[in-house]
Amino acid sequence: MSANTAFEISVFPGDGIGPEVIDPTVAILQTLRDRIGGFDLRFRSEAAGAAHYKETGTALPEEAMSRADKADAILLGAMGMPDIRYPDGREIAPQLDMRETFELFAGVRPVRTLPGAPVPLGDPRAQNLDFVLIRESTEGLFAGRGKTVFDGPADRPTAAHDTQTITRAGSERLFDFAFNLGAKRKERGHAGQVTCIDKANVIGGFYFFRQIFDEVAARHGVSDPAHMYVDACALNMVRRPWMFDVLVTENMFGDILSDLGAGLMGGMGMAPSADIGPRHAVFQPCHGSAPDIVGQGLANPTATFLSAVMMLEWLADTHGVADCARAGRVLDKAVEVAFRDNGLVPTEYGGSSGTRAITDAVVAAIADGR
Amino acid sequence: MSANTAFEISVFPGDGIGPEVIDPTVAILQTLRDRIGGFDLRFRSEAAGAAHYKETGTALPEEAMSRADKADAILLGAMGMPDIRYPDGREIAPQLDMRETFELFAGVRPVRTLPGAPVPLGDPRAQNLDFVLIRESTEGLFAGRGKTVFDGPADRPTAAHDTQTITRAGSERLFDFAFNLGAKRKERGHAGQVTCIDKANVIGGFYFFRQIFDEVAARHGVSDPAHMYVDACALNMVRRPWMFDVLVTENMFGDILSDLGAGLMGGMGMAPSADIGPRHAVFQPCHGSAPDIVGQGLANPTATFLSAVMMLEWLADTHGVADCARAGRVLDKAVEVAFRDNGLVPTEYGGSSGTRAITDAVVAAIADGR
Ligand SMILES: CC(C)[C@H](C(=O)O)[C@@H](O)C(=O)O
Ligand SMILES: CC(C)[C@H](C(=O)O)[C@@H](O)C(=O)O
Repeated sequence: MSANTAFEISVFPGDGIGPEVIDPTVAILQTLRDRIGGFDLRFRSEAAGAAHYKETGTALPEEAMSRADKADAILLGAMGMPDIRYPDGREIAPQLDMRETFELFAGVRPVRTLPGAPVPLGDPRAQNLDFVLIRESTEGLFAGRGKTVFDGPADRPTAAHDTQTITRAGSERLFDFAFNLGAKRKERGHAGQVTCIDKANVIGGFYFFRQIFDEVAARHGVSDPAHMYVDACALNMVRRPWMFDVLVTENMFGDILSDLGAGLMGGMGMAPSADIGPRHAVFQPCHGSAPDIVGQGLANPTATFLSAVMMLEWLADTHGVADCARAGRVLDKAVEVAFRDNGLVPTEYGGSSGTRAITDAVVAAIADGR
Repeated sequence: MSANTAFEISVFPGDGIGPEVIDPTVAILQTLRDRIGGFDLRFRSEAAGAAHYKETGTALPEEAMSRADKADAILLGAMGMPDIRYPDGREIAPQLDMRETFELFAGVRPVRTLPGAPVPLGDPRAQNLDFVLIRESTEGLFAGRGKTVFDGPADRPTAAHDTQTITRAGSERLFDFAFNLGAKRKERGHAGQVTCIDKANVIGGFYFFRQIFDEVAARHGVSDPAHMYVDACALNMVRRPWMFDVLVTENMFGDILSDLGAGLMGGMGMAPSADIGPRHAVFQPCHGSAPDIVGQGLANPTATFLSAVMMLEWLADTHGVADCARAGRVLDKAVEVAFRDNGLVPTEYGGSSGTRAITDAVVAAIADGR
């Protein structure tokens, strides 16, 4: 790759606080690009989301999607507003459509605490968490979305059935991804152990899921594959989360456990994510559009900064651009230093550090090059 | 009711540490009965579980079930052993069959911390948690148990489908139960607010669940019914669990969230439960058979003691026997005092208080009548 690879970044600021966390992130990415050099980032902003649906009748315009399709990466703020819904009552959640359209099967949700940032668990080990949850993001219970089968009269059904689907192909690519990540983490000094989270003791589809996990494990040279029931996992996440390295699970379970993981980091404003597919990747904070705090400067941009780090790393990995990886490390370090040295307490944790204070601290840490 | 109501208690010690926690509980119940008087408890022990399946080919013998059917309450230890499975790979979990057979739709799982007992959350408010999770226990995703539909060749399926079923009748009785409990708690000085936990933004069956919740709420005079998405609930359970009073949810979600709740109490050994149906009720600790610690005196009997408290309360409520309610209060108080005054740290929490130490402290507190 040439030293001046240019990456097209499709930016979806979205609804609510989305733009408030995206703006400083893009500004920081521009600074890093200019400062570090060796690669270019070209941003193009797209209108989409619940507010856009209200205005235009379309949540995710086709032209935006076709430009995003061709971009090198997608950076997303937040989408959806509790009061704006489709006629059938479902929320406007275009990120789910993106996951399906681009087959973003691997929802990567790191649970990493930042020294200095407040966390809920009392044990000192919980101040140094560093594990990753991988949430399958194209099937599972979510595959039943929009396909509910009702019994009885249409205006007063007697029962509702939703089907959870687990496919061999979907599970194989998911577990391959998990074991590859495990191996990469091992190189970096982590345990590298991958644990399959399921409910194989009760639900047949999860027994199937686990069997495929064991097959894929064997192909990756893992002879004693690790499993845990989802209920035990939830318990262990509050009791001894430092035991985990890479967790991999179904869509719905991953949704629940990743929010629990965000809780361990101090809240949704601290939790980044990447939804990765065969040819696309979307990077976004785990939080929603938070209409209650819009326009007050309270939104925590940390999760978006860390999602940008994941984006830089992913671009670097997939295109072999070392300077881009370096930019990721600089931003990651700056976020760490900002929390370590400034006693920042995000407002969601009852503190007074809003968007500006956190952004300024990160910008300063980048400038200092500490 | 006469002052000498005799209750028949069907006891299923079960597998692993089951008998180790049941024995001291039955002994304590006998002491309370003799000491307080005004009611009788007659225990009959039944053989069932995974070990019984291995010996006899039957996990839950019909005769035991028909005696349990006629008993006034069922007290259960733990059932299942990881190595003993049905030919199709599913675990032996006769408690699931009991829930179905006796229609034990309301899985009541209190999250109450005992002052003095160690808990994982650092915030002082987390040392005084007192809320209740109600897990629907006869349908939901568990309704698909044993009914998985596979695509493709039988020896190498390409996909597995499991169906989550939510019925109007099942949801109505569940929510009625929840609002009745909310009202009862309100009388006792709690907030009494009932929150429906679902994923109504994505899954049609949960939107249905939520609509029924709102209907039932209205019938109970609640005009602003409270809802929370399951992912947000998991987050809030680690971030501010003191906000909750009564949570009500689907079977699978309840399984996950109740273990998380047990984590907040310090572990499974602290977490009691009641599975309540129209005519039967099963009381059991949330923990499993824990084969790794069998026979070492390490099992924490607290969850079983507190399950016995729930049994006494339930018998008292359903039969109007005041002395039985008193016995429940005495045992409850004794467990509280035992933890408050003795610095007990269960072995699951890295401490040295085993079955004996905890039992002795509770027995002493009953004797002292403190
Ligand atoms: C907004 C919602 C549809 C979404 C999901 O359930 O996937 C969110 O909770 C998430 O985790 O990305
Ligand atoms: C043992 C298992 C089948 C059971 C369940 O999933 O219901 C247990 O986890 C529980 O919570 O009672």
